[in-house]
Amino acid sequence: MNNKGLLLVVSGPSGVGKGTVLKEFLKTNPNAVYSVSATTRSPRPGEKNGVHYHFMSKEEFLHLIQQDGVLEYAVYSDHYYGTPREFVNQMREQGKDVILEIEVQGAMQVKQKCPDAVFVFVMPPSYQVLKDRLSGRGTEDEKTITKRLTAAKSELSRAEQYDYIVVNDQVEKAAWRLNAIVTAEKCKMNQMKQVIKEVLQYD
Amino acid sequence: MNNKGLLLVVSGPSGVGKGTVLKEFLKTNPNAVYSVSATTRSPRPGEKNGVHYHFMSKEEFLHLIQQDGVLEYAVYSDHYYGTPREFVNQMREQGKDVILEIEVQGAMQVKQKCPDAVFVFVMPPSYQVLKDRLSGRGTEDEKTITKRLTAAKSELSRAEQYDYIVVNDQVEKAAWRLNAIVTAEKCKMNQMKQVIKEVLQYD
Repeated sequence: MNNKGLLLVVSGPSGVGKGTVLKEFLKTNPNAVYSVSATTRSPRPGEKNGVHYHFMSKEEFLHLIQQDGVLEYAVYSDHYYGTPREFVNQMREQGKDVILEIEVQGAMQVKQKCPDAVFVFVMPPSYQVLKDRLSGRGTEDEKTITKRLTAAKSELSRAEQYDYIVVNDQVEKAAWRLNAIVTAEKCKMNQMKQVIKEVLQYD
Repeated sequence: MNNKGLLLVVSGPSGVGKGTVLKEFLKTNPNAVYSVSATTRSPRPGEKNGVHYHFMSKEEFLHLIQQDGVLEYAVYSDHYYGTPREFVNQMREQGKDVILEIEVQGAMQVKQKCPDAVFVFVMPPSYQVLKDRLSGRGTEDEKTITKRLTAAKSELSRAEQYDYIVVNDQVEKAAWRLNAIVTAEKCKMNQMKQVIKEVLQYD
């Protein structure tokens, strides 16, 4: 059963703990890899090309966009950030499941380009918990927290466009749910037609 | 998140090990229950009404069919066997996941009546394995085995009508896949709309 890997698009509001859940998930899924983004910003000390980012010039990035070579992209403080299609495809062809941790807007771009991707939205167990988590960081002032909460509400309101909701009430539980989603997606009929064929042909 | 339980319809050819996989699955899923079938045959010694079967007269059974009170039924050696809708609904309303282990024909009847049911087909890893398992029982003669294999092939050919395929290469693995399917189904968007609503309303 050496099938093509899944493309797992994971979003969720800031403060929901996506990163922690994904780290936990990856611990038990050696078959899954993080997608490496492309960016036009300069590497910071210690950042390696192809590991932390695919670093490229603005011209290269624009060329890639023109060739439909990015699954999604956005511009932050004058720098382009995006997901190169080739890297994702290569990994999937090798049977690796690729994780794309991106914002809702980027996810919706991927939905257009990869209809077979699986879309997972990480939710807080309640709005209050999200509020507490954002405040609990202790690094932001009231104004920043309010701004983040407004942004979070806007992201949450688009959760319905995803295939699955993973509630992060507990990191281990949330990671297990993600794991279950990946396993179940691989048991889906359209992934399994080849297996049925093989079993039926044998005699 | 006290949602309605799932209805899990499980089929697979004779000899594939459905029963063993389900037993293993139920060990780690105290929330899941087997559906109790109705039958018009007489109770055997030790069989309890409502536990092993819902025993009823032919008149009662026919009345139930007329009232659309069975999700599926079949007749074997002059006795009716079927799944009473009420029992399944009651369990699901209590949040229990209900397992229906039935043949393809029955499963297709359930599909008509419960479009929200989840259909899982248990497959052997290969036709040869199924053949070995059926022969390995050692209780049947060549003719019976051939007959069973023909029946199995006919069942296998209808596997595509199911939502998921669980390959039973190893009981624990197959049970884990079933577990994953149940967990993933509960993370599906349509199961989660209430959660999103709650999180968004809170402030």
